[in-house]
Amino acid sequence: MTPPDGSGAAFSPTPRSQVRRRPQRAAYDEATVFGILDAGIMAHVGYVIDGQPFVTPTAYWREGRKLYWHGAAASRMLNTVGDGAPVCVTVSFLDGFVVGRSGITHSLNYRSVMAFGRARLTNDLTVKRAAMDAFIDRLYAGRPVKLRPTTDEELTRIALVEMEIEEASAKVKDTGVTELAADDGWAAWFGVFPVETRIGAALPDPRAGCAPTADLSPYAEGRRLDEALAAAAYGLPVST
Amino acid sequence: MTPPDGSGAAFSPTPRSQVRRRPQRAAYDEATVFGILDAGIMAHVGYVIDGQPFVTPTAYWREGRKLYWHGAAASRMLNTVGDGAPVCVTVSFLDGFVVGRSGITHSLNYRSVMAFGRARLTNDLTVKRAAMDAFIDRLYAGRPVKLRPTTDEELTRIALVEMEIEEASAKVKDTGVTELAADDGWAAWFGVFPVETRIGAALPDPRAGCAPTADLSPYAEGRRLDEALAAAAYGLPVST
Repeated sequence: MTPPDGSGAAFSPTPRSQVRRRPQRAAYDEATVFGILDAGIMAHVGYVIDGQPFVTPTAYWREGRKLYWHGAAASRMLNTVGDGAPVCVTVSFLDGFVVGRSGITHSLNYRSVMAFGRARLTNDLTVKRAAMDAFIDRLYAGRPVKLRPTTDEELTRIALVEMEIEEASAKVKDTGVTELAADDGWAAWFGVFPVETRIGAALPDPRAGCAPTADLSPYAEGRRLDEALAAAAYGLPVST
Repeated sequence: MTPPDGSGAAFSPTPRSQVRRRPQRAAYDEATVFGILDAGIMAHVGYVIDGQPFVTPTAYWREGRKLYWHGAAASRMLNTVGDGAPVCVTVSFLDGFVVGRSGITHSLNYRSVMAFGRARLTNDLTVKRAAMDAFIDRLYAGRPVKLRPTTDEELTRIALVEMEIEEASAKVKDTGVTELAADDGWAAWFGVFPVETRIGAALPDPRAGCAPTADLSPYAEGRRLDEALAAAAYGLPVST
């Protein structure tokens, strides 16, 4: 996968994806939207069964303007959304706690993307095999060839969903405390607590006969997960 | 707020919340469900407008079997869900990457809760003031009295949503690699990369005239966020 190319390409919002609250925090360009999507691994997929909304956390990956996720062939979620039903895929990162001197100036810093489209199940085994290898390779570049090959029977038990992103919006809040005039002089501490998600120390399986190989190098202990995932997606080195 | 009381109380799953995939990972008891909810701060709220699902990330808190969240009074999400529409509130934590010796044994470790109910907007200013103070107090015990009091005008601009949890299910995966017989002998490294979300160094506003006070003590640099949030909710000390 390559990073967003800086071409300035953008999604065109309709009322479905237009950000109404705090539009100054919104973005629709591919660089921002893809930058957030490529830094994540777990999405929250929203879908509807008989009027009831469901939100399922699931691993995903992006290629171009398509999102992919997968699961068991018997999954209710996948069988529901896989026939072209409308879905909303949301990816978010909590980046900090904003602590003010009045209740209303307390908030969170975050990055998020809402992507809308229609999901399609793919049954072709060749397509599924290539997609599953692409997912592994997106996370752990060069790893698929080191693995015991996936069997047709295993592929049959996997449901693969592909969603063309019809529209998407990003929303980013990365600020300090927005003080109000009335807060002036109150003695409470105010500021921001950042929050970071990082990789811990690798836990080798006792039967693993070798050290982690280069495909696993983005996930070094102490690295930020969002940076590691983006670096792995783009084949870039990760700064510590 | 008090921790789940160990009474063994549990939600009764219907087909809406019954976990079908990997039911051995599912739980419906309050101790497990509330334990996950109380360790989080950002939920993904799913709702439906004209058949289209939306998933909005939002800050939330729990009291008993009720979930609360809030936002701008003009918010589409809140005005849509606030009239008793069905919603699904999902909270999830990514805990690790499971790296196997075949594609199908790669997975993620996680904890998640899906909670179902009907959301109601509350317009009573007294109720809203108490709820917003409760939210600040749940995060930062003792802080509300230190803050510039919230005005009626500010409360009017806030929409407060209350949702009675009708049913909820938790799903937890916390395993090593589930090796298959066919994977035996393949030379690839296999094991788990844990993932942790921790508090960073506090960033005081330059105008803050004091050091962080006791209400902020759960959020000490380097502490796990999930443990800090649970400790703050229950008034417990946080282990480092």
